[in-house]
Amino acid sequence: MAFDIAKSFRPNLPPPAPAPWSGFPPYNFIGGHNNAEAVPVAELTEAAAAVLKREGHTLATYGLNSGPQGYRPLREAVADLLQSRAGMPCSADEVLITSGSLQALDLVNAVFLQPGDTVVIEEATYGGTMTRLKALGVNYVGVALDGDGIRIDSLRSVLGGLKDRGVKPKFIYTIPTVQNPTASVMPTERRVELLRVAAEFDVAIFEDDCYADLIWEGERPPAIRALDQDGRVVYCGSFSKSIAPALRVGYVVADWAVMRQIIPLKTDAGSGALEQMVLAEYVPGRFERHVDELRVALKRKASVMVEAVAESFGASAEFSMPKGGIFLWVTLPDQVDTTKLFQAAQAEGVAINPGAEWSADPAAGRNRLRLCFAYPSEKVIREGVAKLADICHREFGVPVRSGNVERGAS
Amino acid sequence: MAFDIAKSFRPNLPPPAPAPWSGFPPYNFIGGHNNAEAVPVAELTEAAAAVLKREGHTLATYGLNSGPQGYRPLREAVADLLQSRAGMPCSADEVLITSGSLQALDLVNAVFLQPGDTVVIEEATYGGTMTRLKALGVNYVGVALDGDGIRIDSLRSVLGGLKDRGVKPKFIYTIPTVQNPTASVMPTERRVELLRVAAEFDVAIFEDDCYADLIWEGERPPAIRALDQDGRVVYCGSFSKSIAPALRVGYVVADWAVMRQIIPLKTDAGSGALEQMVLAEYVPGRFERHVDELRVALKRKASVMVEAVAESFGASAEFSMPKGGIFLWVTLPDQVDTTKLFQAAQAEGVAINPGAEWSADPAAGRNRLRLCFAYPSEKVIREGVAKLADICHREFGVPVRSGNVERGAS
Repeated sequence: MAFDIAKSFRPNLPPPAPAPWSGFPPYNFIGGHNNAEAVPVAELTEAAAAVLKREGHTLATYGLNSGPQGYRPLREAVADLLQSRAGMPCSADEVLITSGSLQALDLVNAVFLQPGDTVVIEEATYGGTMTRLKALGVNYVGVALDGDGIRIDSLRSVLGGLKDRGVKPKFIYTIPTVQNPTASVMPTERRVELLRVAAEFDVAIFEDDCYADLIWEGERPPAIRALDQDGRVVYCGSFSKSIAPALRVGYVVADWAVMRQIIPLKTDAGSGALEQMVLAEYVPGRFERHVDELRVALKRKASVMVEAVAESFGASAEFSMPKGGIFLWVTLPDQVDTTKLFQAAQAEGVAINPGAEWSADPAAGRNRLRLCFAYPSEKVIREGVAKLADICHREFGVPVRSGNVERGAS
Repeated sequence: MAFDIAKSFRPNLPPPAPAPWSGFPPYNFIGGHNNAEAVPVAELTEAAAAVLKREGHTLATYGLNSGPQGYRPLREAVADLLQSRAGMPCSADEVLITSGSLQALDLVNAVFLQPGDTVVIEEATYGGTMTRLKALGVNYVGVALDGDGIRIDSLRSVLGGLKDRGVKPKFIYTIPTVQNPTASVMPTERRVELLRVAAEFDVAIFEDDCYADLIWEGERPPAIRALDQDGRVVYCGSFSKSIAPALRVGYVVADWAVMRQIIPLKTDAGSGALEQMVLAEYVPGRFERHVDELRVALKRKASVMVEAVAESFGASAEFSMPKGGIFLWVTLPDQVDTTKLFQAAQAEGVAINPGAEWSADPAAGRNRLRLCFAYPSEKVIREGVAKLADICHREFGVPVRSGNVERGAS
């Protein structure tokens, strides 16, 4: 190589990938992978055949003859789902199909944010949101959570503190329904209060509802956007969790005032057509039954995970039973640094998400971790959690139970 | 609406979308839409059924068990295609699957460019590339083209002029094979010279080969990347033009030094899975025959377009016969401003790409336009071009031929 191409790179690139991908670890509790058995393969295949037979030739046009907001029948299906499941009246013109909800985050951020801006987030939240905000040079402040989501007293205190400093946050980012990572569900009254405080401080809300279809405990409350009378809420959702993550189909729901600004920022000439066509064909008749079955399967896996953690960690692990979704958020004793645990566990084939990466204040997440229970089999859950407890005992002296034998702090 | 959400937007957003999309114009000669009849719908449907039956459950995992570079069987199929069609030895680890070649442009730009940088482009080039560079705050300088692509004397002069001013361009962006919009093909010797000049000035090359499969005149030369010994060339390609644009499947081919920096910038958790799976299944056995048929169909449509332009505009329109692809690049008399023609034509249902948007120097493209002949039917081509000639006559007094009657300058 006579030419050093790296000399031409821009400065301040993120750290490079260490090596080409070499496969999942044997005990994979990270990311949002889902239950492989639950993917409705046969029905998706039927849907593909039906829609391609009828409309396959429209693949020759960018945007499937539906314009930049995405395949119109899918936008209509999303609008119908949100009406029936999230109490949100909306039209196809308010829906933009995105390449997963990650593109939805990027697009909404791009409309609102510039370097130096501030947003309010939940004290424990999706790590990818914070990564994005950091990359944009945007500051964030965490609000305390309880079992019902954002604590209103904390929100008022955070917004008041910012106001005192002359800082006007661009929006409040919240995952109200099956919160990531805590798996709580914000009750309707709390949503109404949240809207009231947002109005008081004249701030927008970005509602990320991408796990909402996976609620299994109690009723799904109306979306915050459904309760909003002021045009204050931009909403996003996804089929990644309810159908399959590899599809990469999410959506933004927003008033035209926002949508018209998002459209020119979506410069990819449309999201993948086959996914959009197949989902538009599949969703109207078959989504409800599929999600009902998926929730039963996930609830069962959640209980396996909870049992495994209780059995292996005993009183050393604290957690709330998830109200839906695919994650368990676990607090370990103070002496455990889960970022170090992550490294030690990785060396033994156990992958976890360390709490610092899922916390607005990394120090507050230091002894926490997120475990995905949707993807691994029940056997892998039991073995992997036992292994993790052993590593935790070895590295941090955490009392654990191995089999029926309790091992004390060493 | 008690809340004015636009107050929270960042400054300097691009102009908003004017209104929700309301359909294609009747005479649609813009964009990269393709021949609807040529989409191999039945075979794509078979491929979908086969691959979903075998591997549908892997949809439950982000990245389809293939990591962030995309579905491995598709990367292998791309590597095989590039070996056999572009003379480029490459491995699956050098290939990254993207959401169309537009995402490839964004990712490569993101590795190399920051505001204030300079890149060298072709004097007539893809409008979306210039839009992206402008949005990034990057300067560009155009190099003259002839019937064989980049003129080496002009390139040397541009690079020398930049060097004299102390400006080191980040890369030379070129579309060497079926250039957009001129549809020229750079011969092998010219490619070798280009590499030599790039070495002389120590500059990287970004080769955009997304139309290369559609060459119908002469042999497809080896890719510039295939001729490169120095690690100087980053390459991108696409299935948008060869299979179907709505699929949104493109790819970057790059050495690991570049690839490892691109991977962390692709923050969408993978491109659409169904497209990747279906293409991986379809391409190995069926791509060659399909593209052969498509080229025959496109060449026929090109000749219809050329005949229509010659018939309606007579000597007022200059163009070279395309050597492949889906576009005709037309030069009209000096008095025509195609940006104004675009507006007048739009009002009558005829859509064209005005030359200013496809030219490094907008003034140089003022009397040029790009016409896509792949999507419209032969009847629409004939009617639309006649309509366009009439508008051109009316608005700019350009002599045109209507039927067999020649109309002089008015």
